[in-house]
This record gives sequence, C-alpha cells and structure tokens, in this order.
Amino acid sequence: MSQPFSIAIHGGAGTILRSQMDDTLRQEILDALEKSVRAGHQVLSKGGDALDAVVEAVKVMEDCPHFNAGRGSVLTHREIVEMDASVMHGKQCDAGAIAGVRHIKNPIALARDVMTKSDHVLLIGEGAEEFAFENGHAYTEQDYFVTDRRYDQLQSMKDKGLFALSEASYEEESPQYPDDKKFGTVGAVALDQQGNLAAATSTGGITNKKYGRVGDSALIGCGTYAENGNVAVSATGMGEYFIRKTVAGDVAARMRYLGESVSQASEQVIQGDLKAMGGEGGLIAMDQNGAVHFAMNSSGMYRACIDPDGIMSIKIYVDD
Amino acid sequence: MSQPFSIAIHGGAGTILRSQMDDTLRQEILDALEKSVRAGHQVLSKGGDALDAVVEAVKVMEDCPHFNAGRGSVLTHREIVEMDASVMHGKQCDAGAIAGVRHIKNPIALARDVMTKSDHVLLIGEGAEEFAFENGHAYTEQDYFVTDRRYDQLQSMKDKGLFALSEASYEEESPQYPDDKKFGTVGAVALDQQGNLAAATSTGGITNKKYGRVGDSALIGCGTYAENGNVAVSATGMGEYFIRKTVAGDVAARMRYLGESVSQASEQVIQGDLKAMGGEGGLIAMDQNGAVHFAMNSSGMYRACIDPDGIMSIKIYVDD
Repeated sequence: MSQPFSIAIHGGAGTILRSQMDDTLRQEILDALEKSVRAGHQVLSKGGDALDAVVEAVKVMEDCPHFNAGRGSVLTHREIVEMDASVMHGKQCDAGAIAGVRHIKNPIALARDVMTKSDHVLLIGEGAEEFAFENGHAYTEQDYFVTDRRYDQLQSMKDKGLFALSEASYEEESPQYPDDKKFGTVGAVALDQQGNLAAATSTGGITNKKYGRVGDSALIGCGTYAENGNVAVSATGMGEYFIRKTVAGDVAARMRYLGESVSQASEQVIQGDLKAMGGEGGLIAMDQNGAVHFAMNSSGMYRACIDPDGIMSIKIYVDD
Repeated sequence: MSQPFSIAIHGGAGTILRSQMDDTLRQEILDALEKSVRAGHQVLSKGGDALDAVVEAVKVMEDCPHFNAGRGSVLTHREIVEMDASVMHGKQCDAGAIAGVRHIKNPIALARDVMTKSDHVLLIGEGAEEFAFENGHAYTEQDYFVTDRRYDQLQSMKDKGLFALSEASYEEESPQYPDDKKFGTVGAVALDQQGNLAAATSTGGITNKKYGRVGDSALIGCGTYAENGNVAVSATGMGEYFIRKTVAGDVAARMRYLGESVSQASEQVIQGDLKAMGGEGGLIAMDQNGAVHFAMNSSGMYRACIDPDGIMSIKIYVDD
C-alpha cells in the first residue's frame, strides 16, 4: 500500500455573507479553489514533494485576481501592492520568507527559493527583489498586480478616512464587493508520499496599509509552520493578533506537548485567547496522517481539500 | 511586602575565548553591561513598567560601540548598517518590531513606539523610518553607527570571500578583535512590581549580509517573547536556526504546556534540536517570580542580572 497523501488550501477567512454573494462570483471562486487544490494534488500524486505541492497550489491563487495575493493584491496607501509570503518544509524545519516585495509575480515561489537557494530565512524589500532577479524571477510591473476592484476599494477607504485598517474591519452596509470584509491571504498545507509535511502562505496584506507594515503571512511560527511527525499550518486573519499569539507555532506546540489532535489544537487556538483579543480569522492544519482541520472564528473561509482517499471538498461558509 | 522585581540582559553569545580577550576590553564590556542592567533596574525600582526597563537597558547597549546593535552594528555587504529590533509586553501579549532601518539611533525605542503608537506589530525598511520620523525620532546619519572595527571586519570578510556568513562562523586563528566570533545581538528581560513581564532584543544582524536579510531579533516568537504568568525571553545566536525552531516561543510553550521551569525549558530548547541543527547561541529567560536563567550552547555570552534580592552578577564565559 502506498503512503497516504493529502492537500488542503484556503483563500482567506472573514465576514463572507450569502446575502452579498452573487452566483457568478461564487462559481468563479469555487472554480479557482478547485484549480488550486488540484494543482497541488497533482504534484503529490506523482510522488512530488509536499513543498512543491503547496507552492503550486498557492501560485494558482496568486495568479487569480479574486484573491488578495499576487495579482489582485490589495493596495497600500501609496496605491501600490507590497506582498509577503512564506514556506516551511517539515523534514528539517527549513523555511523561506519574503516581505514587502513589489515586482515578483509569484511571491510564494520566491519564498521557496529563499529556503532552497540562500542561507537565510527572511529577506525584505529591495534586497529580496535583488535576490529574486539573481535567481531567475522576472521583473513584473505593478500594472500586472493592480485590479480595478482593489483600486475602488482603496479609494472608498481613503474617502471614509479609514486608515491602516484591514479590509475585514471596514464596516459598510452594502459593500461594492461581496467579500470586501475578508482577509484575503491564501495558503496551503500538504502531506506527501515520503511523509513530509509542508505549509505555504501568501498575501497582499491589508488595504491602505502604510509604513511597510508586515503581517503574519511572512512570519514562521505565526502565519506558517510545518514539522514532520506533527503538523503543517497556514493561517489567515488579522495579522497583528496572529503574530502576538504565534498562531501557527502554538498549534504545533499544543500537538507536540499536550498530545492534542489537529482539530483540538486548531480549535483551542482559533476560538481561545486569539478570538477574545479580537483576532478574527482562521487556519488550515494537516497532521502526519493527512487529516485536515479547517478552523475559523469568522463567518466564512474559502477552503478546499483532497483527502487521503482522494475525495475533494470545496467550501465557503462556516456552516457549509 | 512589595512585589519582587528583577532584570537580566545579554550582549550576545558565541565563541568568546579568554586567550583572546585583553583586560582593557574586558573591563569596558563589564562596565557597559553593568551600566545597562542598572539603567533597567532603576526603572523597576521606581515602580516603572517592565517594558520601559528593558528598553532603557537595551538603549545603553545600542549606544555602546562594543555591541552589535545601534552604534557599532556590523556592516552589510554595501557597507551600511541595517538594524532590527523587537519588544513584547506580557500583559496582553502586545508587541512591536522593526526590521531593516538605517537611520534610527535607538531601534529598540522605535520598536516600542510601533507597539504603543501604531496598530501594527512589524514595520520594515523605509516605511518604518517614515513612521519613526512622524513619531519624533531624529534622522541619524550612517556615520554615527559605523565604527572602524566593523569596517575592518567587513573588509577582512570580503577579502576572504566570506559572504553572508555570520561573524561567528568566520574562522580565523588570530582574529583582530577578540570577540569577532560572537553574535552581537543585545537583549533584556524584566519583571516589574505590577507583575508584568517584558522582553526586548536589538541587533545589527550579520556582517556582510545581503538582500535585506532579517534574523530572529525582529521576530516575535523567535528572538523575543513575553507572556505574563509565564516567561519573558530574549535570544541571540544564528538567527536562521532560531527562526526555524521558534526559540523564544518554544521556551514559553514548554513552560505553559509541560509545566517546565524556566531553566528546564531554556536548556531543553538551547541544548536540543537547535544545537543539533547547528544553531549556536543562547538566550535569557525570566519567569513570573523574577527567577532568571541564562542558557547557551557556545563558549560565552555577555550577560548580567540584578535579581529580586537586589544582587547583581555580570558574566562573560560559560564557566564564569
């Protein structure tokens, strides 16, 4: 019998309401989630590494303008995109991450290159881009990333004087876009046939951000963690709270030290202190057997998985 | 009876050999460590907050050219300094951090301002400096930070073709400076009379670094962590390994979930997987009673404390 393999992805958590979602958008999102999870699963089914599987899955979402990562990233106060991403491989707890890049089509692929081709874990800003160009990444113009939707969103927040807030905390009765109150971070976790766990997370951050703000998506132990024999985690939510509670690392620690299951540990972290502090969001986690748990304290999270039996599921709302 | 209060500091860990340390330098380092720990202790004895105590202690070391933080920071490949720092307050797990700043005299004070005056945890590069200047930090020329010693050190590494290595892994039989093989990160942990724990870490990073490399010192859960009722931690060492093992967060998790003492948890983390992977360095940790533990897997760590009985100790070598 071959070893089990499995993959799960998310396209962000937050306030997602059925009443504000039209059928066309809903179908486009479901299609994109399916394309992403299938891309990762294909790597695994061919015997590929879990790291390559999560990177391929995330790239699909980075390339789709419906998600806040890569193309379609939210805009900063200066009307540009600045992206963060990280990956971790569970075999030796190797990791790579980048923050504040502006001209890299697939930040998640750059994070993987930081892990595999540099002695470092985290590279930032222009330095990260210099490393990227030396390692075969093309210079991508800002125009590629910017969509009308994100421009309208930024102007709306600027008009209202909303400043450095996440899109999810921006209250509007009839938002122009149905998922405006969602943290758009994307991510994936996978178990490969060699027994390796890996995790990947990528984001454009928060609309109207200033000052080179970096959230949890670039940070190992906060937005991303993977450890063979234990768990792989990718988080999405109000990044500052997820950093302060070291969310991904805490799920791993609860499983490692308390012997909790992946679902127990994930729920304890997402529904516990984090939620009480105001840390809205969710995470996906996969254990050493390929069992996946989706945890969220918000009304929805774009998510999908193909489990060890090859069964695919794709969901949006908390009660799906 | 008043509540106990206590402070501990470090000025970096690594290969520090008696045979290479002259008396003058040794005395200057001991004096600086004493000045630092007394500055923090004075805040605590007046009833001040643990956060202000650790920031004051770290500022003394940032201002002293013998430590790799603030003035005296090591130089990047481009012959400039780029500094990282972070703080955390245990009461609500509030945190602030900056990475890649070039013109801020006291990065640790800026990290505190990010925590107290912004909605964010981590700001990077020029954005972090923009925030700094809007919040009263003066623009400090690079000339202030650069010392002859660090310039010589960089040239020596460039001449040898040593690239993006830490100073600690650079092998030389008779180094020009006796502590060239030390990770120069500085840090502090404290317990105040209100029962708050806080931690602070500041660094110039690694000599000859490229690509906007950021180590663990800027990262909550890796170089810095504080949680009331549990522990405050500041780490120093080969930053990439400390990130991959989420060192500061792991000490906190072991105490929180396994009930280990501050010394047990610190030794397990520093002497365990981290060391086996090649993660040389150390940490300081303080528990809720003000008990401090210094852990290191290297031959020395500049360190000092004033314990709850008011007794000061200052040490350099592992066997001091």
